[in-house]
Amino acid sequence: MTKENTTIGVIGLGVMGSSMARNLAKGGYRVLACSRTQSKAESLQADGIIPSSLRELASQCPVVVLSVTDGAAVEGVIFGENGIANQLQTNSLIIDTTTIAPSEAASVAARCAELGLRFLDAPVTGGDVGARNATLTIMCGGTAESFQAAQPVLQLLGKKIVHVGESGSGQMMKAVNQVAIGLGIVAMTEALLLAESRGLNPSMALDILQGGAAGSWALSNYAPRLLAGDLKPGFDAAHMLKDLKIALQAASGRCELPGLATTAALFEKLVATRSGVGNHALMEAYR
Amino acid sequence: MTKENTTIGVIGLGVMGSSMARNLAKGGYRVLACSRTQSKAESLQADGIIPSSLRELASQCPVVVLSVTDGAAVEGVIFGENGIANQLQTNSLIIDTTTIAPSEAASVAARCAELGLRFLDAPVTGGDVGARNATLTIMCGGTAESFQAAQPVLQLLGKKIVHVGESGSGQMMKAVNQVAIGLGIVAMTEALLLAESRGLNPSMALDILQGGAAGSWALSNYAPRLLAGDLKPGFDAAHMLKDLKIALQAASGRCELPGLATTAALFEKLVATRSGVGNHALMEAYR
Repeated sequence: MTKENTTIGVIGLGVMGSSMARNLAKGGYRVLACSRTQSKAESLQADGIIPSSLRELASQCPVVVLSVTDGAAVEGVIFGENGIANQLQTNSLIIDTTTIAPSEAASVAARCAELGLRFLDAPVTGGDVGARNATLTIMCGGTAESFQAAQPVLQLLGKKIVHVGESGSGQMMKAVNQVAIGLGIVAMTEALLLAESRGLNPSMALDILQGGAAGSWALSNYAPRLLAGDLKPGFDAAHMLKDLKIALQAASGRCELPGLATTAALFEKLVATRSGVGNHALMEAYR
Repeated sequence: MTKENTTIGVIGLGVMGSSMARNLAKGGYRVLACSRTQSKAESLQADGIIPSSLRELASQCPVVVLSVTDGAAVEGVIFGENGIANQLQTNSLIIDTTTIAPSEAASVAARCAELGLRFLDAPVTGGDVGARNATLTIMCGGTAESFQAAQPVLQLLGKKIVHVGESGSGQMMKAVNQVAIGLGIVAMTEALLLAESRGLNPSMALDILQGGAAGSWALSNYAPRLLAGDLKPGFDAAHMLKDLKIALQAASGRCELPGLATTAALFEKLVATRSGVGNHALMEAYR
């Protein structure tokens, strides 16, 4: 697969998908892009990206990158009435960077295999900044052969690219990651709430917390935004809630995770009371 | 206060107190040391530390550092029948590095003031390693004058030395710190448990978690010990539970902290089922 004569499709042009499309174009691929809101694709033309319909994209692209909303959207884009499965050549590779349930990913992969298509679950972590700078961590589930085939593409999107195991296991690793992130946000939130409620200076508290055994990425990166009153996503709280529900489902019947249950309930409350805020705004659920 | 002619007392010679006594002696002070288990003081003689009774220590030391078990022990050592308050000169300075409740610290400080003694609550974080290498973070509550007077001593024990506010506020900051540490351990534990229960390689999972937004001191420092099967304290799980109870009490009536409540319940279970393990062994409470 040489870049010059390979066309890659990108479906879903949110914050993550747009950056991915740009990085693939910058990396030398011909990139067709398609989004529910087609004006998003048009706005990427200045970056050399070609707006396309699903049908056209599928007929031209041996490799398609998905970055859509959820499992239902992934299934719709692939197997729906206008889905790409109808047009893709045999042996085409679908790289799904959406976060969906591990069981959904395994099922989509099996359906793809029946149709002679390859499917790699490849959820990412590293946020908008990681997508922009191509420093994402990408957790892949699928055959070794699909993982190998995806390498030239994934190398343009991320920095740490791991083959976790069979189909669904990339999503499982992502669920594990979201458990740690969610609980890390609860740790940050409750420590700062206690400090605030007892009249301690929050900036001083943060400085002390960051320097020791309480230190975390959340404290170093989310807490300063929070203390500055900036609740804008980063990573949308509603997406976090979706991911935590996937994790709860993955844990179900395997292990009791009371911290995760508490965390999911708090994000449920946040999303019910506030919209359009980042996952670092969890403190709002405590008011 | 020049070091050469100043004698400092250290009461309580556990892992933390012993290292503090050594660092004070190394720093040039004459150090008298006293412990419930007096053989501990004797074993420090090679480091130039002089074993002493409480009474003798109090009569010779204008500055006394406490590193004992809990609030009751602090009160006993100071105000008990053989307590140092009976012998200390007026204006002597007691620096209490024990973690006790903020309200206890405030009350001890007030009783000391009535007796003409100065009391600084100065709980620490940084663990056995921080105590040994004098890199502790020390959170101080008391008058600015007491904080200033304690500087030459504290500088020999820690690296980041912060005057948080009035008496009790050092302990409050410590409680805040323990909330973040405890929840950080839950985050690490539940992420690794989910990974394990779904057959993911835990070392691979840890590597991915550490590199991104899930990263934390706990993942970098505790998780490798945990995965190697090393449950020895570091920081004893029973002490962690004590600290979390202090935090719960500090939060009571001020803010609802469901994550902290869940965390304390998990440590309660750990301590009820396993003794002599470190706080990083929380996974044992899930078995």
